[in-house]
Amino acid sequence: MESAIPMHLRTERTRQRRVPDGYAPPYPSFVARHRTDVAGVVMAYFGVQYRGTSSPLADEALAEIAVLFVATDGPSHWDRAWHVDQAGFTNVLSVAYWDDIAAFDRWFAPARDAWTGDPHAGAGVGFFIEVIRPAVESYETLFSSPDRAEGVAVLAAGMSGEVQEHAYWGGMRDRIALSQTSDLAPHGQAQLIVDGPRRRVIVHDNLCLIRSGQDWSDTDTAERAMYLDDVEPVLRAGMDFLRDEGRPIGCYANRYAAVTAADGSATEKSYGMSWWTSLAALERWAESHPTHVRIFGAAMKYLSSLGPSAKLRLYHEVSLARADEQFFEYLGCHPQSGLLNAVDGAKDPAA
Amino acid sequence: MESAIPMHLRTERTRQRRVPDGYAPPYPSFVARHRTDVAGVVMAYFGVQYRGTSSPLADEALAEIAVLFVATDGPSHWDRAWHVDQAGFTNVLSVAYWDDIAAFDRWFAPARDAWTGDPHAGAGVGFFIEVIRPAVESYETLFSSPDRAEGVAVLAAGMSGEVQEHAYWGGMRDRIALSQTSDLAPHGQAQLIVDGPRRRVIVHDNLCLIRSGQDWSDTDTAERAMYLDDVEPVLRAGMDFLRDEGRPIGCYANRYAAVTAADGSATEKSYGMSWWTSLAALERWAESHPTHVRIFGAAMKYLSSLGPSAKLRLYHEVSLARADEQFFEYLGCHPQSGLLNAVDGAKDPAA
Repeated sequence: MESAIPMHLRTERTRQRRVPDGYAPPYPSFVARHRTDVAGVVMAYFGVQYRGTSSPLADEALAEIAVLFVATDGPSHWDRAWHVDQAGFTNVLSVAYWDDIAAFDRWFAPARDAWTGDPHAGAGVGFFIEVIRPAVESYETLFSSPDRAEGVAVLAAGMSGEVQEHAYWGGMRDRIALSQTSDLAPHGQAQLIVDGPRRRVIVHDNLCLIRSGQDWSDTDTAERAMYLDDVEPVLRAGMDFLRDEGRPIGCYANRYAAVTAADGSATEKSYGMSWWTSLAALERWAESHPTHVRIFGAAMKYLSSLGPSAKLRLYHEVSLARADEQFFEYLGCHPQSGLLNAVDGAKDPAA
Repeated sequence: MESAIPMHLRTERTRQRRVPDGYAPPYPSFVARHRTDVAGVVMAYFGVQYRGTSSPLADEALAEIAVLFVATDGPSHWDRAWHVDQAGFTNVLSVAYWDDIAAFDRWFAPARDAWTGDPHAGAGVGFFIEVIRPAVESYETLFSSPDRAEGVAVLAAGMSGEVQEHAYWGGMRDRIALSQTSDLAPHGQAQLIVDGPRRRVIVHDNLCLIRSGQDWSDTDTAERAMYLDDVEPVLRAGMDFLRDEGRPIGCYANRYAAVTAADGSATEKSYGMSWWTSLAALERWAESHPTHVRIFGAAMKYLSSLGPSAKLRLYHEVSLARADEQFFEYLGCHPQSGLLNAVDGAKDPAA
């Protein structure tokens, strides 16, 4: 049993964990471990948004950025997924991760110009970029099994052994190294920057991002049916609630996305990614909102009936970003897209 | 909105609340407020234990202690309830509360002699006394409505306005004033003291007691049916789990008791009272054990379908006691009675 906070990030605490030192979680979980010289990472979501089921321009742009991803200074890992948003638009998300900030900076300028720059202005298709670059102290991961990394964990040197800080409410916060000394509270006001047809948003310090995924590709017929029939509908209802009605409880945006393979075909993986005013707002929803209490109940029932034989894989990554660690830019997107919700719409005249 | 911790008990924190200052609970709750000159209280459970549905000796003893309760220096409030324990014995609990410690001390010696002293030794009926005297810093209360006090709250000067620290996991701890500076962790080893036919137990510092009650006497027909059909069976299953299988998760004893009126007739009130190794163990059960997750889910569904029109009343009191604030004595009781579970049975030869 080890702490989720790696040795080199431990500091003298001014704030306490929620569980006593002798706490023993009832089942194992694991976290990603970076090399100690990794100071921070970049998490970059490139989105394209269009009406209907396909768009030749979107397809072209997606092919182009896939080429950029494998170019010099490109991300260490990326994946792609899609969802339909609350306004009925299809959104395809390409999520890319770097642990070399300088490489990202060199790579990003031309990629940005290609994605949200003049060539795509007025094209009738929306493009957006949502980037945060949290320090390693400001995010955490959690995996139900240690042998298949997803998301930012693919960049890591490996997985931990069984960690202590999980399976209780507050474990998410306790796994973030910065929680040793910070309340992780939001500070500042969201700002909209209008730059021709582009809309940029600077939200505020300690903006919170969660990506929470599931992978049922290893399940056998009976377990797959149990996941798809008993758990997934409850999960989807919770995700739909956050997407459509999350604003009053502090969720700026939620996307429940189906992961696609490199060739665009469907996989048996999905994730929800959502932007929150604060870690506290995410905690409150997870702990007490009926929509997540039902998800939690369905997952508990599923996992307790299957026990260690469950082949469903679960993971998440939760990050906090300062205002100066954020880049959010929207071109031709509808006004309820992503962090535009943090600045009350910001209708794009080019949309 | 006010803090559950009254002004005169606020201290410079070395430990933090779980919620930010701006946290707004989704529904109102209230806490008992003592006069500021009340330093601590006494919570005393007098139990009688017998096989079957009635015992003339128990009836006689219950009548006698009811007389003592109204004598000089007697408790400010008491009530009576009964339950069947895991060994199949009927137990009748008379719970008495004082906020004048000196009065309790004067009252207690002869009452103890009458209850667990020689007159009852070898009588074929078990008697026990379970007393804690927590400082006001070491316990908290919570009420769903402010207009009907129960338990220790009957001693209070009144109820608070709406308090902030509730409706999230960790609120219980955050309402205890001592949590501002203490982790409330248990210390020490339980000791058994054999005194002739009497068995006394000193458990350890920060032993935890919860009394958690429900009152459906104001509900109309439809709401009563919903409580009795949908909520109570789930509550009972959780209570039975704690009674029968609670030891490995840190619950020394649980009694799910039906409150009786002064004349011994049934009421529409019940409470669970349980002894825990620590507040943390109680937190873990409440937050994540399937038996309480189901109780929480049933209660959430009930309250969210009824909304503010719900007439069901809920309350609890949660206390921590140092070893020197405890008195637990058993005469003629079976070895799984109450805190005897903290010292591995301690079979009473007189039982």
